[in-house]
Amino acid sequence: MSQQLIFTNDVAGAIDNWARTAAPTRLFVIADTNTASLVLPQLEEKSSAIAEAAKIIVGAGEGFKNITTLAEIWSELCSGGATRSAAVINIGGGVITDMGGFAAATFKRGIRFVNVPTTLLAAVDAAVGGKTGIDFRGLKNEIGAFAPADAVIISTRFFRTLPATELRSGYAEMLKHALLAGDGSFDRLISVEPDSLTDDELLELVKQSVLVKKDVVTKDPTEKGLRKALNLGHTPGHAFESLALEKGSPVPHGYAVAWGLVVDLVLSHLKLGFPSALLRQVAQYVLDTYNVPDINCTDYPRIVEYMRHDKKNAGDGTISFTLLSAPGQVDVSCTAEPDEITAALDIFRDLMHI
Amino acid sequence: MSQQLIFTNDVAGAIDNWARTAAPTRLFVIADTNTASLVLPQLEEKSSAIAEAAKIIVGAGEGFKNITTLAEIWSELCSGGATRSAAVINIGGGVITDMGGFAAATFKRGIRFVNVPTTLLAAVDAAVGGKTGIDFRGLKNEIGAFAPADAVIISTRFFRTLPATELRSGYAEMLKHALLAGDGSFDRLISVEPDSLTDDELLELVKQSVLVKKDVVTKDPTEKGLRKALNLGHTPGHAFESLALEKGSPVPHGYAVAWGLVVDLVLSHLKLGFPSALLRQVAQYVLDTYNVPDINCTDYPRIVEYMRHDKKNAGDGTISFTLLSAPGQVDVSCTAEPDEITAALDIFRDLMHI
Repeated sequence: MSQQLIFTNDVAGAIDNWARTAAPTRLFVIADTNTASLVLPQLEEKSSAIAEAAKIIVGAGEGFKNITTLAEIWSELCSGGATRSAAVINIGGGVITDMGGFAAATFKRGIRFVNVPTTLLAAVDAAVGGKTGIDFRGLKNEIGAFAPADAVIISTRFFRTLPATELRSGYAEMLKHALLAGDGSFDRLISVEPDSLTDDELLELVKQSVLVKKDVVTKDPTEKGLRKALNLGHTPGHAFESLALEKGSPVPHGYAVAWGLVVDLVLSHLKLGFPSALLRQVAQYVLDTYNVPDINCTDYPRIVEYMRHDKKNAGDGTISFTLLSAPGQVDVSCTAEPDEITAALDIFRDLMHI
Repeated sequence: MSQQLIFTNDVAGAIDNWARTAAPTRLFVIADTNTASLVLPQLEEKSSAIAEAAKIIVGAGEGFKNITTLAEIWSELCSGGATRSAAVINIGGGVITDMGGFAAATFKRGIRFVNVPTTLLAAVDAAVGGKTGIDFRGLKNEIGAFAPADAVIISTRFFRTLPATELRSGYAEMLKHALLAGDGSFDRLISVEPDSLTDDELLELVKQSVLVKKDVVTKDPTEKGLRKALNLGHTPGHAFESLALEKGSPVPHGYAVAWGLVVDLVLSHLKLGFPSALLRQVAQYVLDTYNVPDINCTDYPRIVEYMRHDKKNAGDGTISFTLLSAPGQVDVSCTAEPDEITAALDIFRDLMHI
């Protein structure tokens, strides 16, 4: 699971460098219709590899992350004459890096691919670490493979073309990584508003954040144990996300993760003695930056139900959590009972003034 | 790429043993309609794991090795409540072990699977070594993954329910393995007719053969170099197979490989000095056991064209071959020009009295 990580704001130069060294017989770019109009034209001007590559353009959004689009990508690779020595460059958010990565990982049993994430969330999460996949029958990433990108080219220069919610969404994963690392980066992250950072300041913080994830993934590429650390915030986060979708007012993934982080820190406090002062500090930052989810106590049974169906559970009916006894002190094998979860949700609502 | 290989004629016992140790939360059997009627009933009687498993039955034959059937298998795994701790047992020939393996390898980014090959060809080839996949747009195994089975349970007790051509087809891969190994097994193999062996004699020969493949695959799981040794006979073999299909009279894969072995040994003789006496011996055995392909010199351009489109080529227009300077002395990085190939085909036709 070796994966070259390139942090740079000269994306075109990095792509051309990679292409010179890797020397694929043919190069294919996978992008969605948004990125094709907003990002590709700039890159085509400066990168000869991108200018000459065959373009595979798919519909934009999670709704296209399915077997139909996957089959279209495979077809275009076939028609374009891709051999085992061809390569793919995925340019986009998590939908594109996940689906394009899976298409490449399974075409002729695997051709090389490069990820160029264009959102902060993809840069610090989806594009790095080798998880690829598509949604299936309404279930997120139900079908997929562990397959590392040959290289991930990470820059902050595309983020400003996107709404502020996108930036904040990715920032939640950075908060998570900083809590897992237990280094000084957490204090730095919560001392600023995400939107106020310059491109270069943000790139430096992104680099620290991605290296936390890289470190975990290198030690446990296929999520047998340690990698579950990266699920911090995600068990309640996915439940908030699913509930909001069910209620017809979807929330960004990162917002749900930010709220989920607070819930997991409440559980961490209750079960493992995570320091309450730090818990309050995180809750305040999340409240200021992400506002609050639309929930009340009548939603608890649905939230617990969603948690119970999380695919990270062992399948024996228990609900799994990754919790912290302190920043950097991770326990990936916690479980919580429904009454503990509802107690944590009560405290969460108090902290968040819901 | 660790894969437990179990050689036994007590298949039910081996399956139950595996299930006791692996303790999957749910177990699914994938089989085709033929195996469901000919093999499953016996196994259900003797194996409690098989009796209790959910059955996923798909259409029989290469024509069903496609994305539609794959999606059906994924759907049934979803509906059946498969979690990451579930497992799949593929019972069948190469189509089932390839497709069922790929379905398992990509469901929730990979659940465990066991292969129970019911044909000799699947036992000595498809079921072992981690190649999984489906056909796509008429191209064999165009989509797939390298994913090792958790265990492969190899027996000879199902082979007799199949036509003699099936047994001979698998035997061709055994000849190939013996030539690659360069041990005494080759002399043993060509001293008998495949159909004359008892189940136990055949199981012993199958074991030697599979261990040759296992050794190669362990050293090079994703076919970067050494694994190309297993392509011996396959560049011309696939061309014979495709040509026969095009002419409307398909030939069994193993027959095409047997003829391909002779062509590759002719090239080996011309280019690397493979001993001519042994070449003649192999040609005679192949002629006696597999008869000859329906080709003449007007087919040469088509044969070369098929070889050129083989996915094992580098994509730079050259045609790749695995050749031998002697049994056990393998060169995986040979290329041959069209005039060398047609010269080899002339000698092949002489040797085979075509």
